[in-house]
Amino acid sequence: MPSVSDIAEFLAREFPQTKCTVEAVGNRCAMVRHEVGVAELRPGGTVSGPVLMAVADVALYVAILGEIGIVPLTVTTSLSINFLRRPSASAAIIGECRLLKLGKSLAVGEVSLFSEGSDEPVAHVVGTYSIPPSAR
Amino acid sequence: MPSVSDIAEFLAREFPQTKCTVEAVGNRCAMVRHEVGVAELRPGGTVSGPVLMAVADVALYVAILGEIGIVPLTVTTSLSINFLRRPSASAAIIGECRLLKLGKSLAVGEVSLFSEGSDEPVAHVVGTYSIPPSAR
Amino acid sequence: MPSVSDIAEFLAREFPQTKCTVEAVGNRCAMVRHEVGVAELRPGGTVSGPVLMAVADVALYVAILGEIGIVPLTVTTSLSINFLRRPSASAAIIGECRLLKLGKSLAVGEVSLFSEGSDEPVAHVVGTYSIPPSAR
Amino acid sequence: MPSVSDIAEFLAREFPQTKCTVEAVGNRCAMVRHEVGVAELRPGGTVSGPVLMAVADVALYVAILGEIGIVPLTVTTSLSINFLRRPSASAAIIGECRLLKLGKSLAVGEVSLFSEGSDEPVAHVVGTYSIPPSAR
Repeated sequence: MPSVSDIAEFLAREFPQTKCTVEAVGNRCAMVRHEVGVAELRPGGTVSGPVLMAVADVALYVAILGEIGIVPLTVTTSLSINFLRRPSASAAIIGECRLLKLGKSLAVGEVSLFSEGSDEPVAHVVGTYSIPPSAR
Repeated sequence: MPSVSDIAEFLAREFPQTKCTVEAVGNRCAMVRHEVGVAELRPGGTVSGPVLMAVADVALYVAILGEIGIVPLTVTTSLSINFLRRPSASAAIIGECRLLKLGKSLAVGEVSLFSEGSDEPVAHVVGTYSIPPSAR
Repeated sequence: MPSVSDIAEFLAREFPQTKCTVEAVGNRCAMVRHEVGVAELRPGGTVSGPVLMAVADVALYVAILGEIGIVPLTVTTSLSINFLRRPSASAAIIGECRLLKLGKSLAVGEVSLFSEGSDEPVAHVVGTYSIPPSAR
Repeated sequence: MPSVSDIAEFLAREFPQTKCTVEAVGNRCAMVRHEVGVAELRPGGTVSGPVLMAVADVALYVAILGEIGIVPLTVTTSLSINFLRRPSASAAIIGECRLLKLGKSLAVGEVSLFSEGSDEPVAHVVGTYSIPPSAR
């Protein structure tokens, strides 16, 4: 199975926009970290919702690649987010993913998102990914 | 109630990151348009998922502001997206929102997202927004 | 493609618990009707949430069967409901489904639920169904 | 805060249809158990989806009541379920809820559903409840 650095290299090519770093992967889990940029803040000093969704999407993708290997055509089919608390403007966002199901054609996982250093989640995500037949 | 240009001005301040333009608002509906940039594409030539979520989020916000006026503390509480078809890399994304409920404290709406010029949706979103007490 | 009565017969066997009747099917849409029983009410005189979810699930299933034929192993993979207004205790529940996508392996649809005679929805559902390979 | 038996008594009045028993409540969590009846099975011997949704709805409600006390007007505003594995026809359904947020007006929680005796979830639910002003 791919290592943290295999997946990081792949992400740098596949998701060149993402600023997420892969902190850990394995055992149907993944942890990613996203340094918040000034352009990602909203007035009042909080992280914008789409930034949180993007971090969760990467965390899910990394957790799945950690189980099935580097399969580029694995794509998100749905993503559902609940915003729970105001993220800090001055902390990175941490995404912790746990896969709930890894089937032949569909993977389902949940992600808790935190402001780094806090243990109360700022958002919770459930997402599903479609796995292409070639990967099975 | 605010006009298209009132809301556009407000968005430029509140969501300075967004490149969405407000095309129409009123009757519990809104239409927004997002010109897709090169940085928003994924390999294979499709629009990234978080870009679609961000467009839907703006469409919902605009539809709500069109009913309750410019209320900055109105915030997304949940957003759920289903990806339906591959968006075109060379067309803008159009978001068409319809509010399903506009209560005192909670608004719920759905958004269909299209590649401009196509009438099959690329994604479908349902989102909820919390309306602050001061706005009621 | 199956008629309303083909699908009704199939439902009577497959979902013997359901009291839904099939009112219309075709063109990627379906309408079902559920007569509310006393056991389905909650104190205060409203229809319980799980009853609404069950009606939406049947409406989605009927709309899909109307397109792919009677395929018993088609199963719900996800269902997401927003409760919008209090349903009437003395009216039937009407479910109107429209399919958003009918792929080879996955169908996605939305359902608006109404108290019969009212045109404001009591709930809105998005659901996904997995279609077995044998049906394609 | 209410005990298991206080909540059980309340449920027997408020949700007379439910067959769920309250197994545990406290610390923002709850566990409920639902004995599966013959009428709740689908052909092929599995538990119907709406039965799973109903169990999750009760688990969420119990977890919230365990924190805010017996507040009858607390109502579900949204519920989102992913079906993960086929439940056993011959085992009870266990619902384990954990609250993710308990705000003044909104509570959010997740529920994992199991066939009793198995440790792989059959479904995963995220739900939101609205808490009436009188309870705050």
